[in-house]
Amino acid sequence: MNDSYLKFVNSPFGGRLARSLGLPKPEVLRRYRADRPEFDGLVAIGAGREPHLFDALASLIASIGMTSVAHESAGLWVPLASRHGLMTGRFEPAEAAAPGKLAALLFDASGIDDSSLLEPLHGFFHDTLRSLGKCGRIVVLGRPPETCASPRQWTAQRALEGFVRSLGKEARRGITANLVYVEPGSESGIEATLRFFLSPRSAYVSGQVVRIAAHGALPQNPPAFDWRQPLAGHRALVTGAARGIGASIASVLAAEGAQVIGLDVPSARDALDATMRQLNGSALAFDIAAPEAPAQIAAALDELGVDIVVHNAGITKDKTIAKMTDTAWQSVIDINLSAQERIDEALLAGGILRDGGRIIAVSSISGIAGNPGQTNYATSKAGVIGRVQSMAPHLRARGITINAVAPGFIETQMTAKIPLAIREAGRRMNSMSQGGQPVDVAQTIAWLAHPGSAGVTGQVVRVCGQSLIGA
Amino acid sequence: MNDSYLKFVNSPFGGRLARSLGLPKPEVLRRYRADRPEFDGLVAIGAGREPHLFDALASLIASIGMTSVAHESAGLWVPLASRHGLMTGRFEPAEAAAPGKLAALLFDASGIDDSSLLEPLHGFFHDTLRSLGKCGRIVVLGRPPETCASPRQWTAQRALEGFVRSLGKEARRGITANLVYVEPGSESGIEATLRFFLSPRSAYVSGQVVRIAAHGALPQNPPAFDWRQPLAGHRALVTGAARGIGASIASVLAAEGAQVIGLDVPSARDALDATMRQLNGSALAFDIAAPEAPAQIAAALDELGVDIVVHNAGITKDKTIAKMTDTAWQSVIDINLSAQERIDEALLAGGILRDGGRIIAVSSISGIAGNPGQTNYATSKAGVIGRVQSMAPHLRARGITINAVAPGFIETQMTAKIPLAIREAGRRMNSMSQGGQPVDVAQTIAWLAHPGSAGVTGQVVRVCGQSLIGA
Repeated sequence: MNDSYLKFVNSPFGGRLARSLGLPKPEVLRRYRADRPEFDGLVAIGAGREPHLFDALASLIASIGMTSVAHESAGLWVPLASRHGLMTGRFEPAEAAAPGKLAALLFDASGIDDSSLLEPLHGFFHDTLRSLGKCGRIVVLGRPPETCASPRQWTAQRALEGFVRSLGKEARRGITANLVYVEPGSESGIEATLRFFLSPRSAYVSGQVVRIAAHGALPQNPPAFDWRQPLAGHRALVTGAARGIGASIASVLAAEGAQVIGLDVPSARDALDATMRQLNGSALAFDIAAPEAPAQIAAALDELGVDIVVHNAGITKDKTIAKMTDTAWQSVIDINLSAQERIDEALLAGGILRDGGRIIAVSSISGIAGNPGQTNYATSKAGVIGRVQSMAPHLRARGITINAVAPGFIETQMTAKIPLAIREAGRRMNSMSQGGQPVDVAQTIAWLAHPGSAGVTGQVVRVCGQSLIGA
Repeated sequence: MNDSYLKFVNSPFGGRLARSLGLPKPEVLRRYRADRPEFDGLVAIGAGREPHLFDALASLIASIGMTSVAHESAGLWVPLASRHGLMTGRFEPAEAAAPGKLAALLFDASGIDDSSLLEPLHGFFHDTLRSLGKCGRIVVLGRPPETCASPRQWTAQRALEGFVRSLGKEARRGITANLVYVEPGSESGIEATLRFFLSPRSAYVSGQVVRIAAHGALPQNPPAFDWRQPLAGHRALVTGAARGIGASIASVLAAEGAQVIGLDVPSARDALDATMRQLNGSALAFDIAAPEAPAQIAAALDELGVDIVVHNAGITKDKTIAKMTDTAWQSVIDINLSAQERIDEALLAGGILRDGGRIIAVSSISGIAGNPGQTNYATSKAGVIGRVQSMAPHLRARGITINAVAPGFIETQMTAKIPLAIREAGRRMNSMSQGGQPVDVAQTIAWLAHPGSAGVTGQVVRVCGQSLIGA
């Protein structure tokens, strides 16, 4: 397999195609390890005029213990940072020649309210991008366009998307670039999200746009938590937990302190028990497609309730539509989509999913872009997006968030069965030039499950290394 | 170039990669010609339970003179069609073995309000897809998810997106597949949009999702028009009209009956004059980036006003951000985005763009997905999307619509300069396995400019042959 790929990229045409698509020489991605510092190094700060988020950013940087340097576009940063007790300095033009000097680039675009004022975005990244090290982090912050008062402000804020997505495709070297839209009034709720995007935990999340909302989703008295064990005292149900991505989700949530209840089909009972034993979790062996499953799951969780529900269980039955049987259609829709609806309704109706809870559903890049041979799967996964968008407003009053992750090419037993050429294309056609790992999906889910993510709801976050493929 | 491509697709690895990406053997697309019937052949009708759009569809099919056959999922069609005086029959399972028998497949999914009821979608396309001829048309009709009363209905309607996008990627052979969400109350306003998606005019538009809105955008007394000359009596301003896509837009709008005013920079005056002479149009030679341009354009149009404004003028100045000059950044943002804002404000403030008018702006696939080396261009084109989304609600009261088209790979002098490998990839990586033509963009704009498109506003329609590339 690697030989084929190497032969291909070394042929004259293949080499040119590979280079132009950015296929070759994947970087070894830095991932989170409990035995290494999660945040270190220098973060350069840039801004458009009237940055509204400097206070929140200074408080974040003090909290995670990074050191900041201010680009000339961020003149107000130095006095502010010193008020927050931060070590800080100025980014000198000469430093642009020092590759690897910076660990992260943060740009506050929240005050840009006209397209003619976008230039500092260019100035900052023009000066700093070459100094950003391997696996560096880029975060641009703005205001949700749809909350902007004037069409001109909306336009300028919406323009940021094109910028960040281009920058992510340009940066390479394992660098991620993401855009966080912060609704006015939600500034105190940005830390968990910015920690995620600045951390090695977001190794395979790039080119994404996330909104942090203010509207009522933030509880008046947010529960106290420890940043090192944020899920301590929380109970999490994970479906499809016996192996693969589901087992990784269970493992990451447990590492964050959650008490995990893993669910899988009865035929996977042994693998499920083994996985749960390692995590001090408990196991539920149910077929989620069975009509009685929602009531059974609700009964099993009833006494202690649950705080986090991760709908990860899913199947594929690929065929072109002319060859697809009714059963192949119906079972994929039922397991991947309708079963989630039934289970959530049972857990919500009985108050078993507690107020302030989290629902996270696994969608797919196929649900966004469509995929030949997967009309059933893509329909189910697009439906998952609809579920998240439609349920979010209903759940807001109870402080429950609902979001989806949409994995791209993740290295699993399932993807190992994909024919060679499609597999290689899927693996390489993204800004990381490689497939992701199950832990990348799991870490993204852990961020959404975090008590500090109360302002993130109704959203779809791709875990795809910024795949070329989309809609 | 073709030799390289042929060598590549005929090597063992290249062949497999090409096949899996669907690269080879592009179909010759059927395009609109005034001397050939626009609509002919059989259209098969399918439906989920309680189809709400059958009346509107029967009236459409009577109007365009096609013949319908009802699939077993559409039992109510036959009696309804005969009430509309339509020739109709039943689609027999044996006909599935007759490739090319059908010219179009229409599925009314508007009544599907639960994910468990999606099966007829599978049943219909399972039975009919193989009978659809080359360059056939697929349209699925639903309800806009965000207008649905229940989360389950929203979810089921949102699921249609994954289905249609997969089907488009699967169908090949020049077939297009699109999804039209019809808001309750807008049923009388669907004909112009369905004509476009059933016509050869939409040759390079596939995998798109379009909403038809009811809210006030439909004038009480829609102006009468002739389907063969729908823009007769309308005046259309087209920027960047001297050559390429702009000249094609001017030409198509003129063929639909519009009086065209072409605008381009003074240095393109000769080409512009030549283009306009052919169309009996008039020419305006202004640099849209000049501060005085909006007032000059407004003054030039003042006496007769204008009904259609097409913002097509645009430039590229590609460089990675570290090498991009301030001027390259600022000129692209200014010409592609800020100038549009200034011109529209001048035309709207003076009432020069008349009530019931149309604004159509050219965005780009780069503005959706981002593109390395195009941080400036992608920012400007993402901003265009913001412009359309933010202005649409403001303009509704005046019956003015604003939409964007986002071209993918279109064969022009601009794309001819792209390096070989990127050009070949851009050309092939879509469901049509080929680049589009300027006329494909122009026809899409003509549909949005149509007096019958009053319910289509705030939208972005890609003209990309369903490119793999997206966000």
